[in-house]
Amino acid sequence: MILALAGGVGGARLANGLCKILDGDQLVVVVNTGDDFEHLGFSISPDLDTVMYTLAGRNNVALGWGIEGETWNFMQALEGLGGETWFRLGDRDLATHVMRTQALRHGDSLSKVTGRMFQQMQVACQVVPMSDDPVRTMVECDEGVLAFQQYFVRRRCEPVVKALHYEGAANARPSEAFRAALQDAQLDGIVLCPSNPFLSVRPILAVAGVEAMLRKVQAPVVAVSPIIAGAAVKGPAAKIMHELGMEVTSLGIAKFYGDLIDGLVIDAQDAHLAAAIEATGIAVAVTDTVMKSDRDQQKLATFTLEFVSRLRREQSR
Amino acid sequence: MILALAGGVGGARLANGLCKILDGDQLVVVVNTGDDFEHLGFSISPDLDTVMYTLAGRNNVALGWGIEGETWNFMQALEGLGGETWFRLGDRDLATHVMRTQALRHGDSLSKVTGRMFQQMQVACQVVPMSDDPVRTMVECDEGVLAFQQYFVRRRCEPVVKALHYEGAANARPSEAFRAALQDAQLDGIVLCPSNPFLSVRPILAVAGVEAMLRKVQAPVVAVSPIIAGAAVKGPAAKIMHELGMEVTSLGIAKFYGDLIDGLVIDAQDAHLAAAIEATGIAVAVTDTVMKSDRDQQKLATFTLEFVSRLRREQSR
Repeated sequence: MILALAGGVGGARLANGLCKILDGDQLVVVVNTGDDFEHLGFSISPDLDTVMYTLAGRNNVALGWGIEGETWNFMQALEGLGGETWFRLGDRDLATHVMRTQALRHGDSLSKVTGRMFQQMQVACQVVPMSDDPVRTMVECDEGVLAFQQYFVRRRCEPVVKALHYEGAANARPSEAFRAALQDAQLDGIVLCPSNPFLSVRPILAVAGVEAMLRKVQAPVVAVSPIIAGAAVKGPAAKIMHELGMEVTSLGIAKFYGDLIDGLVIDAQDAHLAAAIEATGIAVAVTDTVMKSDRDQQKLATFTLEFVSRLRREQSR
Repeated sequence: MILALAGGVGGARLANGLCKILDGDQLVVVVNTGDDFEHLGFSISPDLDTVMYTLAGRNNVALGWGIEGETWNFMQALEGLGGETWFRLGDRDLATHVMRTQALRHGDSLSKVTGRMFQQMQVACQVVPMSDDPVRTMVECDEGVLAFQQYFVRRRCEPVVKALHYEGAANARPSEAFRAALQDAQLDGIVLCPSNPFLSVRPILAVAGVEAMLRKVQAPVVAVSPIIAGAAVKGPAAKIMHELGMEVTSLGIAKFYGDLIDGLVIDAQDAHLAAAIEATGIAVAVTDTVMKSDRDQQKLATFTLEFVSRLRREQSR
């Protein structure tokens, strides 16, 4: 059984690859909820939705986020009524927020709501939030402390990041399925998807007890670097690494995760960094890591699982 | 100053006529909120919305309800997620519900929210809910007691009505603007729009103190009959009158309102009933009451106001 930790677009793509090549009961995808927020009365979980739409094959490819065939008439009408429009909610996407918000208000856990929605969307593998308790990523930047979506969407990641805080994480319990996966004797490996390390993976690791449980796991922990040739495929990962004084390379990623991971998948363009990364005690596997098509996603997923298997074999020697 | 009591489509049309021919400060339109309900987490006020869209010139003419240029992608996506779709919420219409729900949740009164939305929609006259307190029309029928929208939309008015109850009305206070208008020394007349007497006008009259205040008003009270040639232009008024054992004619309407009204405007097709109505002590004015165009609406509004003026002149003699 494989446990994958994922955040937004990059994470969703690798999770999709894993979901396509593994049986439903062989994969648990744990998704970051540090980006979640309340807006216009809705409980919004952007990363869960990105993963859901991607795994259901219904993600909006042209837009890069949201659901396919989206329309914006709600948003337009809201603007006409003087409502807040900085966070764009599509007409179809709204159904997800309405369903989730209603269920949470009726006392269902985020795990339960999420499970039901993924089932409705006919996603085979198990996808769960990192926690049913609220965790909120706060961005400490040159303009003060901003709630994540304020930084990410409203301020378009422009402020200079000084530090990140995961509000509530210390008191949040991992979701039941997440905890169970971490402690499952059948766990063959953990994959940290190529999501933003600060905004997607770190919040998951910050949930109370998660890092400690993860360090106890015998199976290999492998990350896929979200940095290729000094840049992120999408999003502000490179910008934030730079602002935090980190080296914006796969080596920087290796140093960031440190002894938490056993292996790192890096892009062929970064092959020259392999030796330096291995010198830190982390095994390296090199391949093309840019995922555009479904085929790319499955290829990288297969490659990553083979890397996990190799590390497992090496462990048992 | 004129006070108009209105409910759904027919009421909205006459209110629109009145709004077009009177100055903004000469007209207060009080709208039924007995149809209001909570659905999918939204506070929905169907009659307020019908009046708002109509007075803003943005009502959906083809559909007969809702807002012009409506699309249904939210609804379609909701269906895909297994959500409730019996009450159809359009993508543009949703903005109204989101704005209202949010403001109510933040503690604004329904009057305040309504005022702000009508202003955003650039409606000149004052439109207020009958009450800021919840009143819920309950339909006692052969299937038991149904909440209004369950009867009206879900069951398409098919159950046989035995009685109507206006839950909460006895403890609801009229909205401040409604109370002020009823007690305004400048009040020249009250118009009961051609809305459903049981589902639109009665709930307004049932609000605590309203009927008593209305009976104290010196100015004439004039109703416009919603029944033309034994049928309602739209909606279940005729069906309900029949089920409650009433005569389905303008005379039936006259008997229903009784001494609460001084005059009744009836359609030319019902001219033969004028004498019988006048025998009950209610003055009658006959004209074409079917309103299709804006011009029809203004014509009927003008005619009704002239009738009010005539009754006022006769009173003062």
